[in-house]
Amino acid sequence: MRTAFYISDGTAITAEVFGHATLSLFPVDFKNITIPFVETIEKALEVKNQIDKAISSKGEKPLVFYTFVDHELTDIINSSNGVCYDFLTVFSDQIEKEIQVEPVPRTHRTHSIHEKSYDFRIDAVNYALANDDGANLKNYDDADIILVGVSRSGKTPTSLYLALQYGIKAANYPFTDDDMDDLKIPPALLPHKKKLFGLTIKPERLSAIRNERLANSKYASIKQCRIEVREVEMLYKTHRIPYLNSTQHSVEEISAKILAETGLERRKY
Amino acid sequence: MRTAFYISDGTAITAEVFGHATLSLFPVDFKNITIPFVETIEKALEVKNQIDKAISSKGEKPLVFYTFVDHELTDIINSSNGVCYDFLTVFSDQIEKEIQVEPVPRTHRTHSIHEKSYDFRIDAVNYALANDDGANLKNYDDADIILVGVSRSGKTPTSLYLALQYGIKAANYPFTDDDMDDLKIPPALLPHKKKLFGLTIKPERLSAIRNERLANSKYASIKQCRIEVREVEMLYKTHRIPYLNSTQHSVEEISAKILAETGLERRKY
Repeated sequence: MRTAFYISDGTAITAEVFGHATLSLFPVDFKNITIPFVETIEKALEVKNQIDKAISSKGEKPLVFYTFVDHELTDIINSSNGVCYDFLTVFSDQIEKEIQVEPVPRTHRTHSIHEKSYDFRIDAVNYALANDDGANLKNYDDADIILVGVSRSGKTPTSLYLALQYGIKAANYPFTDDDMDDLKIPPALLPHKKKLFGLTIKPERLSAIRNERLANSKYASIKQCRIEVREVEMLYKTHRIPYLNSTQHSVEEISAKILAETGLERRKY
Repeated sequence: MRTAFYISDGTAITAEVFGHATLSLFPVDFKNITIPFVETIEKALEVKNQIDKAISSKGEKPLVFYTFVDHELTDIINSSNGVCYDFLTVFSDQIEKEIQVEPVPRTHRTHSIHEKSYDFRIDAVNYALANDDGANLKNYDDADIILVGVSRSGKTPTSLYLALQYGIKAANYPFTDDDMDDLKIPPALLPHKKKLFGLTIKPERLSAIRNERLANSKYASIKQCRIEVREVEMLYKTHRIPYLNSTQHSVEEISAKILAETGLERRKY
């Protein structure tokens, strides 16, 4: 199997996202190796050796995706036997010409504590945890959005992703049978109706997820799941709460759809 | 201000990461607009119009970073007045030649529920939440790693990031004054000593963070923070627990460093 390296003077997250997206075009498996924080000549030489040794038994050279600021480090990696792809500079000449501004490369450009949005994101994570599962009904003034839905419809992971990735403060509130009986919005949520966003899910999938948590319970039964899903969807429709079905979607997709539909302002790019 | 668009038939997360990393080379602010799930000709034509209208008052064209699989959609976006950068294909010819395999582009290549690692990641998030702050000492058999440290040293956001991004099950345990008094590892952690990874932090920063939570308390006082940090670092050294100082690092950086230092196997690339 051929090896793919993702290397950087920082976290290497950008190199990974880029390399992974590019390689995902090909129906081939790679052995993935990430090496972050290659910040010195010694470390770069070590990595060069590791790349040179990673030629496969069939003689296939490793592919190397990297992001470096220091040209000396770049040159060392380029001198390896790997096939190197430097995507950070691939468009920078074109962009320089277009915007008529010279690049000023800095290390730790992204994913560092110095990003403007960083404190927002950590605050938002703490907010999501403190306001998970209807834990604290008094804090909804501070919420950017309040995710609602039946138990296990995907509210918590989505609220954490919105916080970590975008710095969005997402509370979440679980609708119970009692809440939904008369199709009324619970009093604690009423003043914040405009912030509500609903999740729904196929009853079969919901039952499977709940069975992992509480096997053979009434809570996990397909009958109960069908009732709750039908009720919650009627509640959304009655009160015109925007909602989406999470069954076939990842937290990344759900979050991206929520942002697109609500126009919510994110704090990180 | 010039506008930068990030556009995709999927979440547009990849287009954002790439565009953001490339633009971060330039000391210029952009107005950022992300448009995910551009999956139809109608939607693509709408987006083309939006791009055409986004020419700045000085006549500057918007920059457009996109990832599309469907060529018809790509052509529509390329016909706009934006300056388009298609990074997904920029290296694919070179890679095709190198690996001698033709690309088979698929939509929702990344960030979808169909990624092999997806269920692992959601499981890991639920695990991190259930085992946050020493909540459940019985589950440590299942942990890939147990983050330890004094209260507010960065354990919880780090464990959530490890879960969401890498599918790693990270429990976390807060060392209290009592735990550290005699420099012994708490009994519940002893059988899992090899999984322990410590965080530490500058007392000044710790005191600032704690003051936001409980202003003017003994808990937040610089004296108390100095004592706890000194004790916890002695504990790490005495028992050779690997640790790092989180003061100057983002959760992304802390997580990348933990992976690099421990060699922990991640479930997502």
